[in-house]
Amino acid sequence: MATLNRQIKFASRPTGIVTASNFQLVETPLPVPAEGQVLLKTLYLSVDPYMRGFMSTRASYAAPMELGDVMIGGTVGEVVESKNSKFQVGDIVEGRSGWQAYAVDDGKMLRKIDPSIAPISTALGILGMPGLTAYFGLLEIGKPKAGETVVVSGAAGAVGLAVGQIAKIMGCRAVGTAGSDEKVRLLTEVYGFDGAVNYKTAGNLKAALAEHCPKGVDVYFDNVGGDVTDAAFDLLNTGARIPVCGQISSYCADKPDVGPRLLWHLIVKQARAEGFLVYQFTEKYKEAIPQMAIWLRDGKLKYQESIIEGLENAPQAFIGLFQGENTGKQLVKVS
Amino acid sequence: MATLNRQIKFASRPTGIVTASNFQLVETPLPVPAEGQVLLKTLYLSVDPYMRGFMSTRASYAAPMELGDVMIGGTVGEVVESKNSKFQVGDIVEGRSGWQAYAVDDGKMLRKIDPSIAPISTALGILGMPGLTAYFGLLEIGKPKAGETVVVSGAAGAVGLAVGQIAKIMGCRAVGTAGSDEKVRLLTEVYGFDGAVNYKTAGNLKAALAEHCPKGVDVYFDNVGGDVTDAAFDLLNTGARIPVCGQISSYCADKPDVGPRLLWHLIVKQARAEGFLVYQFTEKYKEAIPQMAIWLRDGKLKYQESIIEGLENAPQAFIGLFQGENTGKQLVKVS
Repeated sequence: MATLNRQIKFASRPTGIVTASNFQLVETPLPVPAEGQVLLKTLYLSVDPYMRGFMSTRASYAAPMELGDVMIGGTVGEVVESKNSKFQVGDIVEGRSGWQAYAVDDGKMLRKIDPSIAPISTALGILGMPGLTAYFGLLEIGKPKAGETVVVSGAAGAVGLAVGQIAKIMGCRAVGTAGSDEKVRLLTEVYGFDGAVNYKTAGNLKAALAEHCPKGVDVYFDNVGGDVTDAAFDLLNTGARIPVCGQISSYCADKPDVGPRLLWHLIVKQARAEGFLVYQFTEKYKEAIPQMAIWLRDGKLKYQESIIEGLENAPQAFIGLFQGENTGKQLVKVS
Repeated sequence: MATLNRQIKFASRPTGIVTASNFQLVETPLPVPAEGQVLLKTLYLSVDPYMRGFMSTRASYAAPMELGDVMIGGTVGEVVESKNSKFQVGDIVEGRSGWQAYAVDDGKMLRKIDPSIAPISTALGILGMPGLTAYFGLLEIGKPKAGETVVVSGAAGAVGLAVGQIAKIMGCRAVGTAGSDEKVRLLTEVYGFDGAVNYKTAGNLKAALAEHCPKGVDVYFDNVGGDVTDAAFDLLNTGARIPVCGQISSYCADKPDVGPRLLWHLIVKQARAEGFLVYQFTEKYKEAIPQMAIWLRDGKLKYQESIIEGLENAPQAFIGLFQGENTGKQLVKVS
């Protein structure tokens, strides 16, 4: 076993676009588990858009990271030493070790992963936070009914891919937006979307979306905000629901993002926009994960991972999220 | 009885601010009721911000008015001739005769008013559309809990005054925004608001509101949009509800109103913004009106009317709404 840990620390606050200089790779002593703790070796770490919020001092739903902190984030790890009777060496667990090769953990928030159900990396994707975000955001907030039209922005991302597919499972028309022709092709040819729009080349976004939504938009699952959202709001049907999951188009803005005021649409359409965090639904995870696993097993739900190898490349993987480089879940294989 | 009717017709579409030239007063033959109809003499007519939407061709929740139409709107009238067995001469009814001195009506949508409960003008205000808008928007969408803070914009308007008072009845802290020091004084000294802000002179609106909302904002009932709404969104608590009732600050804009994008706040606060029309709750009117009447009788609910005399002055009364001239319900006494 290694005698040193490797960690990526938060080195400087980005102003606008995140760059490699906001991170620092350091070597530190291997942590030693105390009584009740386990030592985890990180196998996969997750990079997600929400992390950008924690790098900013702008008010958010949790306190910002401090400079010098190890970057936060979800991980899948292996127990390599255990002083906690609930865990054995060799157990695979999902937790929040952050961007480092090893971490100690008291086990309270660890979730054991059964590698026989699906590849363990899915615990960070389709059977983890992004998959659950899609599941609860769409079903609990979007409340789609069969025959309705669901539009999802950022459709080729980890959350978006799942939203579109769950919409199809519910009997809805699924339409997505994404940032390349290749992604658009994947959405319709591989993931069963009924239509998809490349927002970068569409020109008139409203017209492009309208073409795929002949009956208007009943649920708009928003991952991106900005122009795409403006266009979707223009197409809302009466009684539409808008689960607001992310606004990635503005996460790296260095000043408040400005656009047409949208609340008027809510009145005209008697529509509801509701922001959410997946953690609101923690108590229902135990129902959702088996359901998602069944859909996965039955081939109703497919997933895709973009995997970059090496802890040292985590910043690059993270930065790529904001440049639309990933399709599906972006992971870093650490060990 | 008169032999001529007087009507105010929609003469030209406003671009931006509404002006007197958008209306035309005409004399027409007195209409004659057919079998099943009544002839109504208009006693009061209501002018309301929503009417601006019907003067525009911008997409809204109903088709726009055509040039030459009699201006639409709620009225309280007296049956002066009846060929409908359900109505007798002398009955006082609430209906939608629009801006005219007389109208025929088939009675299907008329509601008889009992003058012994409250002045008949209240059927257009606190016991009519604006009062019901406040009631359902606050209770059904805002869902205030005792101890929470409710902020209402346009608080000195017909809807806003009722929202603040119902919030107090529910045990909430009520804070309003209005456009003059006199209105602010009325809100706190007469209508029981815990705090009020003059948005025109406050300078830093967020700071001014925050001073009156030491525990943040749980319900933001929005009548106005614009800067006031931007400030209120900055103060939302986790789980906040935003009934979106009106956006009067932008009704007369001649181009799309632009401002900071607000959806991010919904995520950060896991908050819900929901637009509504009072007509969604038609089936519950029969519960709400008696409840409002009881609160009125018990002095828990007060109301205020701004009354302009003369049908010919209806345009001026309407235009005044957008200049913040009214306090409480703006009515025109026609006869």
